[in-house]
Amino acid sequence: MRILLVGAGGVGSAFAAIAARRDFFEMIVVADYDVAKAEKAAAADGRYAAARIDASSAESVAALCREHRITHVMNAVDPVFNMSIFDGAAEAGADYLDMAMSLSQPHPQAPYEQTGVKLGDEQFAVASDWESAGRLALVGIGVEPGLSDVFARYAADHLFSEIDELGTRDGANLVVTDDDGNEIFAPSFSMWTTIEECLNPPVIWEKERGWFTTAPFSEPEVFDFPEGIGPVECVNVEHEEVLLMPRWVDCKRATFKYGLGDEFINVLKVLHTLGLDSTEKVRVKAENGFCEVSPRDVVAAVLPDPATVGPRMKGKTCAGLWVTGKGKDGADRSTYLYHVVDNEWTMREYGHQCVVWQTAINPVVALELLARGTWSGAGVLGPEAFDAVPFLDLLTEYGSPWGIKEL
Amino acid sequence: MRILLVGAGGVGSAFAAIAARRDFFEMIVVADYDVAKAEKAAAADGRYAAARIDASSAESVAALCREHRITHVMNAVDPVFNMSIFDGAAEAGADYLDMAMSLSQPHPQAPYEQTGVKLGDEQFAVASDWESAGRLALVGIGVEPGLSDVFARYAADHLFSEIDELGTRDGANLVVTDDDGNEIFAPSFSMWTTIEECLNPPVIWEKERGWFTTAPFSEPEVFDFPEGIGPVECVNVEHEEVLLMPRWVDCKRATFKYGLGDEFINVLKVLHTLGLDSTEKVRVKAENGFCEVSPRDVVAAVLPDPATVGPRMKGKTCAGLWVTGKGKDGADRSTYLYHVVDNEWTMREYGHQCVVWQTAINPVVALELLARGTWSGAGVLGPEAFDAVPFLDLLTEYGSPWGIKEL
Repeated sequence: MRILLVGAGGVGSAFAAIAARRDFFEMIVVADYDVAKAEKAAAADGRYAAARIDASSAESVAALCREHRITHVMNAVDPVFNMSIFDGAAEAGADYLDMAMSLSQPHPQAPYEQTGVKLGDEQFAVASDWESAGRLALVGIGVEPGLSDVFARYAADHLFSEIDELGTRDGANLVVTDDDGNEIFAPSFSMWTTIEECLNPPVIWEKERGWFTTAPFSEPEVFDFPEGIGPVECVNVEHEEVLLMPRWVDCKRATFKYGLGDEFINVLKVLHTLGLDSTEKVRVKAENGFCEVSPRDVVAAVLPDPATVGPRMKGKTCAGLWVTGKGKDGADRSTYLYHVVDNEWTMREYGHQCVVWQTAINPVVALELLARGTWSGAGVLGPEAFDAVPFLDLLTEYGSPWGIKEL
Repeated sequence: MRILLVGAGGVGSAFAAIAARRDFFEMIVVADYDVAKAEKAAAADGRYAAARIDASSAESVAALCREHRITHVMNAVDPVFNMSIFDGAAEAGADYLDMAMSLSQPHPQAPYEQTGVKLGDEQFAVASDWESAGRLALVGIGVEPGLSDVFARYAADHLFSEIDELGTRDGANLVVTDDDGNEIFAPSFSMWTTIEECLNPPVIWEKERGWFTTAPFSEPEVFDFPEGIGPVECVNVEHEEVLLMPRWVDCKRATFKYGLGDEFINVLKVLHTLGLDSTEKVRVKAENGFCEVSPRDVVAAVLPDPATVGPRMKGKTCAGLWVTGKGKDGADRSTYLYHVVDNEWTMREYGHQCVVWQTAINPVVALELLARGTWSGAGVLGPEAFDAVPFLDLLTEYGSPWGIKEL
């Protein structure tokens, strides 16, 4: 297995650090638009090489694949580049993995009622091409989507006879402080992606209605997260699980709620009110004249790089799936399958903060299962298309066990 | 009189439109970094010419002054460029006017208690050079500072025997709507300047203590504005009046409070929390690589241009000075001197929205008084250094009367 890792940001660098401890691959080319970042991440292991890549160009991706005889392209950049990387991998005949699917576009007339272009639509549109080429695109294999989808498959196979709702619930009690110990605003994950998922119309799936949308921040609910995190206010957010799970797992409803908290919701609302969430370029004064920048890129650029906040961060993050329905015995069942990671542990063990680490470990596990042949397939497939047990076992073997709690 | 107008934004364009109706000058060169903007504003009158200028370069300013034999440089750009324009005018031997003074820098150790570099300090530092050259720099001659300072001088000369507080109070009931009639976030004045003045530590002057600062948004107070605007919550804001008035007008205290409202304060707090108020450049992806932009410039760029919101704006804006102390008869007196402008009127009469129009009319009046010789002087002087009566009379003659109300 020869891997092209596209993106040496927070998640990409954590991926490199986690994979460095495993022997299932021959080499990894770490590529980034900013080659200095790629070189830094590539220093993690002797099997790594660094390269510059333009992720917005399928040709740039395909050329790098051919140059290094890449078998698997691991996409670890903001999902705005998904299609060029996905197409570049196809062009070079490589398998492909990502941790978020191709982007949505709201319904032009009724954005908060009906879906327009859905997450992943562009990728699923060419699924038959991938299938007939015998190539695999494993989409949404981070932690959420990713591990949450593995949980869905596990619940259906081993815990439930009938599922009412597959409700992904994400929450944390992370705090970032400055040098003086004062709490600061520093998202633990890509601000670009956070804005994208939180300000897009949240999508919900119901067996009778299919996919539909609501207004942002809808249906607030306090969810009590395990292992000391405690109750956090969660709201509906657009997320891949809702698009993936119903395709492979029988259920009546699929939702995703994110524990954003009041302060973060206020920040997102203000960014939206001002238009600073926009990805349409604006003309701004620069050194020698003007330049065109995307306001959302500027918001991301002023905030601390999520890859660097680890040492100043404290707390735990939890990803998980709340499943309701009837158990194998036919009785009502309400179960939360989850994965909690403590920042102190990831920083000590890997030198990466817990949120990006928790995202990055899952594609490493998946690639190892693909390398072993335990997982195999062709087409555009979500994590729930594969057997969950070997994945959860290998995750535990990596030293990061999952948990289960009846609610 | 041959005027160089630096800046063809909202205020500059309104200045050009107001001056076009007067005959006290020979010509105006309208200069902007964006020459298309300069050309548009210069189309207002046959005595106008357009030019490109780099306001950050004193040489660029001086060269344009020499080329057109400029007698008066009218600075109508964001105050970050004040010193290069001020120095360029001095170099070319021209008189100078601005509507905001050179910028402050917070005290490095105690920013919310003590002043660091104060507004105007850099300009006042070279006052003796201007005086010995026989040249005038009339600083802070917009509406606030500007007309408010004229009111201070008027109150001292004609209304009060003893002044306790000179309290500038600014408020409005302006609303901007989109094409569908929904209220939108669209500041009526330069967002760059608004951020600067609202997030810097507010400055207060007291006879015993001199100048000192507080935390942003301090001492909230509901002030009842006249002519139908009504009560608005006002907070302390850093403003030039506090630096200017005590230099020429005897008083015990000088303050400035701005009617920002809750929503706007929340926006400013979020911008500050995220660092989007910063003027330090950040590296952002652009068309061909990266470019360096100031986050604050990006915030200004995504918002509607204050010069263009006029047709979608409704309401009135009020600038004024609340004076307390003892009247000429020795009895307690509390008087608000004010200037209210209705957006509907300025749009109909001049095609410019009320806030920029209200700012721009004052330097036109001042230049006319200088052209007539009614006002004259040398050095770095504030508006309160001159007789207020001819200014207020000429303002009324322009069709924009002021008001007075006992509180």
